[in-house]
Amino acid sequence: MTMSGATRRRLGRPPQTENQRERIMHEAAILFGRSGFDASSLHDLAAEAGISKAGIYHYFKTKQDVYDAIIIKTLRGLFDHVSAAVESVAGPQEKLLVFMTAHADFFERNYWAFRCMLISYSGMAAPVSRHDAVALRERYESLLRAIIAEGVRQGDFRDVDPAATGRAVLSMLNWMVRWFRPGGLKTAAEIAREYGDLLFRGLYN
Amino acid sequence: MTMSGATRRRLGRPPQTENQRERIMHEAAILFGRSGFDASSLHDLAAEAGISKAGIYHYFKTKQDVYDAIIIKTLRGLFDHVSAAVESVAGPQEKLLVFMTAHADFFERNYWAFRCMLISYSGMAAPVSRHDAVALRERYESLLRAIIAEGVRQGDFRDVDPAATGRAVLSMLNWMVRWFRPGGLKTAAEIAREYGDLLFRGLYN
Repeated sequence: MTMSGATRRRLGRPPQTENQRERIMHEAAILFGRSGFDASSLHDLAAEAGISKAGIYHYFKTKQDVYDAIIIKTLRGLFDHVSAAVESVAGPQEKLLVFMTAHADFFERNYWAFRCMLISYSGMAAPVSRHDAVALRERYESLLRAIIAEGVRQGDFRDVDPAATGRAVLSMLNWMVRWFRPGGLKTAAEIAREYGDLLFRGLYN
Repeated sequence: MTMSGATRRRLGRPPQTENQRERIMHEAAILFGRSGFDASSLHDLAAEAGISKAGIYHYFKTKQDVYDAIIIKTLRGLFDHVSAAVESVAGPQEKLLVFMTAHADFFERNYWAFRCMLISYSGMAAPVSRHDAVALRERYESLLRAIIAEGVRQGDFRDVDPAATGRAVLSMLNWMVRWFRPGGLKTAAEIAREYGDLLFRGLYN
């Protein structure tokens, strides 16, 4: 039996060039996430990644390009991961809970890219990339709002404003970047589940 | 009738020195909040404030000192404002709602200092100031947790974890720094009231 090309590609190592580009982005996310975009240089990045500056310039023209590539990749990955999880379950309640836990899970597994995106964000200045990022974010928030609106329509949820409620959900999830550290007592998804319980049932006795 | 010293001080302009120090902090909050701490220099600050660098050095030794002074002043002001508002009402439900709206109101009126504190935060590196800021933040979060715990004890709220619930509350409020702009359709306090309604009543129909 011979393997298909697709199977061989899955089993084999990714092409070296892709590897190297991804590795630069990974090291850069840690560097920007730790030290901030402004305080980090391509010189620092080259040292961290153990690669020459020329090696970085082979893939990225500027520090801004590296930053933008991290953000776009993270936003795309987040949407793909969360929308697939949401599609795997039925009903607005289950979908909203899965949206929250899948988001938190993706955040925990992409911790530095998230920090980079949500804390050291002042690098997001270039108009073109900012436009792409805004469109990706909008697509993601639309997915969330649609779930909430569907819950209201079906009568599972009270007649809340999907936009305002979506903001509240994303606020709880995104603020985790400021206090949550991977490897603690609870996973990010567990915390998201607790937020979900609070959000669904409310505080009133 | 002669005025007391205290009355005269309230009516008169603050002493010039205090004025100048406050003005530098105000301009610095806008500069750091807009451009980030790392990307801003004392030279930029002097230009923005229309004051010589020597004039800044009269009040602050370093850029870090200016930053720390803004954060400490903001955290103290936030606690004073919110705790006074909370004490003016009775019952955990009302206190929690007032905590949220007073927080949002203070945020809106100190917009740039909040951005400075919550976005361009990488300046918060000096151990001493960080320690002060952590203590002030802890005192503030304790106030919130105590309100929630009291609500649980009195049976107004479900048996939720005050720490986790406090986190959810502060996440919704603090994330506003990332999307809210003063002068829009709603005030920050109005948005906080909507969050309060969602939090109290929950999503379930």
